[in-house]
Amino acid sequence: MGSADYVFPSPNAECARRVAIPPPQPFVESLKYNLKETFFPDDPLRQFKNQPTSRRFVLGIKYFLPIFDWAPSYTFEFLRSDFIAGITIASLAIPQGISYAKLANLPPILGLYSSFIPPLVYAMMGSSRDLAVGTVAVASLLTASMLGNEVNANENPKLYLHLAFTATFFAGVFQASLGLLRLGFLVDFLSHATIIGFMAGAATVVILQQLKGILGLDHFTHSTDLVSVLRSVFSQTHQWRWESAILGFCFLFFLLITRYISKRKPRFFWVSAMAPLTSVILGSILVYLTHAEKHGVQVEGIAVGRSFAMFKNYHIDGNKEMIAFGTMNIVGSCTSCYLTTGPFSRSAVNFNAGCKTAVSNIVMAVAVMVTLLFLTPLFHYTPLVVLSSIIISAMLGLIDYEAAIHLWTVDKFDFIVCISAYAGVVFCSVEIGLVVAVAISLLRVLLFVARPKTFILGNIPNSMIYRNVEQYTNTSSVPGVLILEIDAPIYFANASYLRERIARWVDEEEDKLKSSGETSLQYVILDMGAVGNIDTSGISMLEEVKKVMDRRELQLVLANPGAEVTKKLNKSKLIEKIGQEWMYLTVGEAVGACNFMLHTRKPDPLKEESEAYNKV
Amino acid sequence: MGSADYVFPSPNAECARRVAIPPPQPFVESLKYNLKETFFPDDPLRQFKNQPTSRRFVLGIKYFLPIFDWAPSYTFEFLRSDFIAGITIASLAIPQGISYAKLANLPPILGLYSSFIPPLVYAMMGSSRDLAVGTVAVASLLTASMLGNEVNANENPKLYLHLAFTATFFAGVFQASLGLLRLGFLVDFLSHATIIGFMAGAATVVILQQLKGILGLDHFTHSTDLVSVLRSVFSQTHQWRWESAILGFCFLFFLLITRYISKRKPRFFWVSAMAPLTSVILGSILVYLTHAEKHGVQVEGIAVGRSFAMFKNYHIDGNKEMIAFGTMNIVGSCTSCYLTTGPFSRSAVNFNAGCKTAVSNIVMAVAVMVTLLFLTPLFHYTPLVVLSSIIISAMLGLIDYEAAIHLWTVDKFDFIVCISAYAGVVFCSVEIGLVVAVAISLLRVLLFVARPKTFILGNIPNSMIYRNVEQYTNTSSVPGVLILEIDAPIYFANASYLRERIARWVDEEEDKLKSSGETSLQYVILDMGAVGNIDTSGISMLEEVKKVMDRRELQLVLANPGAEVTKKLNKSKLIEKIGQEWMYLTVGEAVGACNFMLHTRKPDPLKEESEAYNKV
Repeated sequence: MGSADYVFPSPNAECARRVAIPPPQPFVESLKYNLKETFFPDDPLRQFKNQPTSRRFVLGIKYFLPIFDWAPSYTFEFLRSDFIAGITIASLAIPQGISYAKLANLPPILGLYSSFIPPLVYAMMGSSRDLAVGTVAVASLLTASMLGNEVNANENPKLYLHLAFTATFFAGVFQASLGLLRLGFLVDFLSHATIIGFMAGAATVVILQQLKGILGLDHFTHSTDLVSVLRSVFSQTHQWRWESAILGFCFLFFLLITRYISKRKPRFFWVSAMAPLTSVILGSILVYLTHAEKHGVQVEGIAVGRSFAMFKNYHIDGNKEMIAFGTMNIVGSCTSCYLTTGPFSRSAVNFNAGCKTAVSNIVMAVAVMVTLLFLTPLFHYTPLVVLSSIIISAMLGLIDYEAAIHLWTVDKFDFIVCISAYAGVVFCSVEIGLVVAVAISLLRVLLFVARPKTFILGNIPNSMIYRNVEQYTNTSSVPGVLILEIDAPIYFANASYLRERIARWVDEEEDKLKSSGETSLQYVILDMGAVGNIDTSGISMLEEVKKVMDRRELQLVLANPGAEVTKKLNKSKLIEKIGQEWMYLTVGEAVGACNFMLHTRKPDPLKEESEAYNKV
Repeated sequence: MGSADYVFPSPNAECARRVAIPPPQPFVESLKYNLKETFFPDDPLRQFKNQPTSRRFVLGIKYFLPIFDWAPSYTFEFLRSDFIAGITIASLAIPQGISYAKLANLPPILGLYSSFIPPLVYAMMGSSRDLAVGTVAVASLLTASMLGNEVNANENPKLYLHLAFTATFFAGVFQASLGLLRLGFLVDFLSHATIIGFMAGAATVVILQQLKGILGLDHFTHSTDLVSVLRSVFSQTHQWRWESAILGFCFLFFLLITRYISKRKPRFFWVSAMAPLTSVILGSILVYLTHAEKHGVQVEGIAVGRSFAMFKNYHIDGNKEMIAFGTMNIVGSCTSCYLTTGPFSRSAVNFNAGCKTAVSNIVMAVAVMVTLLFLTPLFHYTPLVVLSSIIISAMLGLIDYEAAIHLWTVDKFDFIVCISAYAGVVFCSVEIGLVVAVAISLLRVLLFVARPKTFILGNIPNSMIYRNVEQYTNTSSVPGVLILEIDAPIYFANASYLRERIARWVDEEEDKLKSSGETSLQYVILDMGAVGNIDTSGISMLEEVKKVMDRRELQLVLANPGAEVTKKLNKSKLIEKIGQEWMYLTVGEAVGACNFMLHTRKPDPLKEESEAYNKV
């Protein structure tokens, strides 16, 4: 076929390029394929294919314990880098561990234990090379608020401690089973926008809690929401200790300055990494008595690993990470550790410090152990206000207002999700903020399906291409033909909307043509290219549309239906009702056929076809 | 541009047909447009546009009281048809009204009241011409089960009665406010499959309840689930009254036979319509004492109006119907009526009896009133077993097993939804069945978005068209180019899945090319035609994909991004990163450009462009 008759093809010339009905697939086959795509999209068993049994065993061990994968090729060069990185993150982990344990209402020493055992487990099982394992502020805050509902940490510290270990154990079991059951994809339902809002909200809440330490207050509310905290703070202005506040702001200023320096000149990463430990030592030398608080969240851990993996172009397996985190917490709970994960800030320092493998975690663990053995007495003299400053400075880094502005510019809806998560966390509680944000995110997905976009398509000059007239303003319409694109799967949730919307497009087009006195409407082409799937409600809708079109003496034409849609239209006999001669591979061909009909002015397609055949 | 250079266009020749970035729209404008599409997809105010105020007032009255619309053109011819239809549905409404009131544990007379006032209200406010208003079995069953949890109808009948009126009142307020708030679309979330399964389940439950009447049992379980009912029935086999059962089966046989006749020959519709009343009269003459039960649901009402509207090609406004139903129930609750809606079976009879307007409802109401005034004494002698038979025969009509088989052939997932709704209702409760079915339906929508289909596209012989290689088996691949189509919006819920899936497609393609020794992969084209929208998580995903491609020395090319997607890619500066020269209007043009590059073997597109320019 030459390109000359491409523009106005006669219907029978088209026969060679009919819409294909995909070959039938056995039900069990397609079910298997769909289950695989849902739970094993990363095809984790791919490397095991076509391998002898012994090799499979080795690969299996390497799969669950990646240390066996990279350990044999470990060099002295690597150790040097990892050692520096390990020492750097240890200097962050020690003061933060103590602070966050205090935030969870747990003895500060637990923050150090938690930076010792879990990193060792992760070093063996984890697939991320940059993740620094430890306690995080948000998880610590959650621990305090959830356990606090059951037991008062001050009245019954022993029970509270046991509950914290039990919670850590079950969190570990839950994480590991999510990974083993391949349900890691549930984490995907936390969108980027949700995480930004949630983290900023949690950081705000944690900062508010630090007002106690900074202002040196003895009594403080147990609630975490903004209103309660501010009411509690301002109801006891006479209790504010100005010395404490001034000292706190000095340390905070010092920490923020060092962070600013490191941010401007990445090669000075160690300045900000060392600052907290320096503060603690300085503060302890200033001989105040100790007190502290803590932070962090699971979700953060995985998202963290992923963004670093990008820089180094290696692959992180969400489900495998879940198993590693789970094991880490199960083992941790048996060795006096509480909930740990991979905090972003420390992982960033680890990355900047040039870590090569998970050995940096081992180095950190050893450094923490040394601290535990020899330096613990020092921490008895660390002032609470220093720990509060450390937490505030870490938390300020989590409030990513630039990302929120970016969301506003790019996608208003994502901005709403982000702000809802933030407001939910700040004004209500961490759980409510999370639930609200996830609900709004899901609502958006449902709204996308419930109210799909429909466009009128027009012809792009000098081509057979038809595109959205709103996007391409230089398009021209085809007389007597209305071309509509449907931009979502046709499901029960949108079937009646689409029926009404299509009817309205046709009404509006006819009104327009009537008022301008042009050719009356004769063909309605539905571009099904973007319709990924259809269900039985959708098929009934198309049947109704077909009937309505028949009654209005309009011909319904389908262009480019996909595999799944064609299969179902065929099974439901709708193809027969519409007529396979009214289904085309592209909008261009459909318009060509309509034009051919319009010009020969014979409405019957079958007659038309034989007519055209005779002409040829 | 001729069609010769269409196949291998040089990049600069393309400039005329670049992907257009849609003109920016003010935020408020687009928000207004989106809100309108969500809540006013039917554009109810369209007819008011460009009309003088007085005309608007008249149109407004006609909008809320459609009777003023059709009454002026009402003819004697219409009245004749409506009279016959009205008498026919009255003969159904009277025995069913009594039966269903009994099912709701309410005095039978209430069933008659409910077939008198609400039809009059609907006749004035309703937009459907065929809907016969009255009580329905499922609503009656729900009333009994929900009120029964609070008050025992036998011990405290007066309180129970008042509760029933209150429930009806609030149901009316709820319906009317859903309509006024334009939330009628919530009903769309009940899919076709859900309704089939739910109705069949409810019908089964109602039939099971009739075992009490048919077997003449005195004691019966209050539960509605299959297991409890069967246990209750078979634990008292010695109580079964065989005379009652035989009489019941005789009446049931009579009713089913008449229905079969009417189904075979639609002109004998009155045979089945008159059968229930005949049974009641016959049964009452056989002098047993009365007893009864009842049925129906809101959802049914609206779905009903819609399918009849299709035959007659007029428009039903879901939100307006909601307001009419709501008012009907509010007024009804003040006049001793309980929950009413538009039962499908009776509306079908009304349609077959040739009704022309809602006057048939007025005729029915008058006929019911006459019955109330003069014939009520008769019903004191109607045997319970006859009413049970009437309910069973009506319910059997609701079990649409053929539709369920159709679901299995066309769409397995819809079949699962249908069966879940059925099993939920039969084995647990009406509420649980509904919740399970809606949850599964929503899960399907979420899964569609969370696990979108991705396809490899191939070239259809002798064309510039690229289609799914699984659907079109005669396609050929383009050496060195991988073409992927993404079949859903790119949202947070699928962003990480898509990243992994795209990576896997590329891996697999490279493995295949390596093993066959063909040209190595150089271009990856993403066909974005079916990507209706993208959020910030999706944009980050594309950024990562772009980085990974760069690292693997592959060129990422986008084909046919839609208006919404282009706008966001532009705002997030991703277009600049990918390069506008790597975005094409169609896959064909993208492949053309890639081929041009491959053949001239210059990897730098900018160089290429000037090169090509020099050639021209």
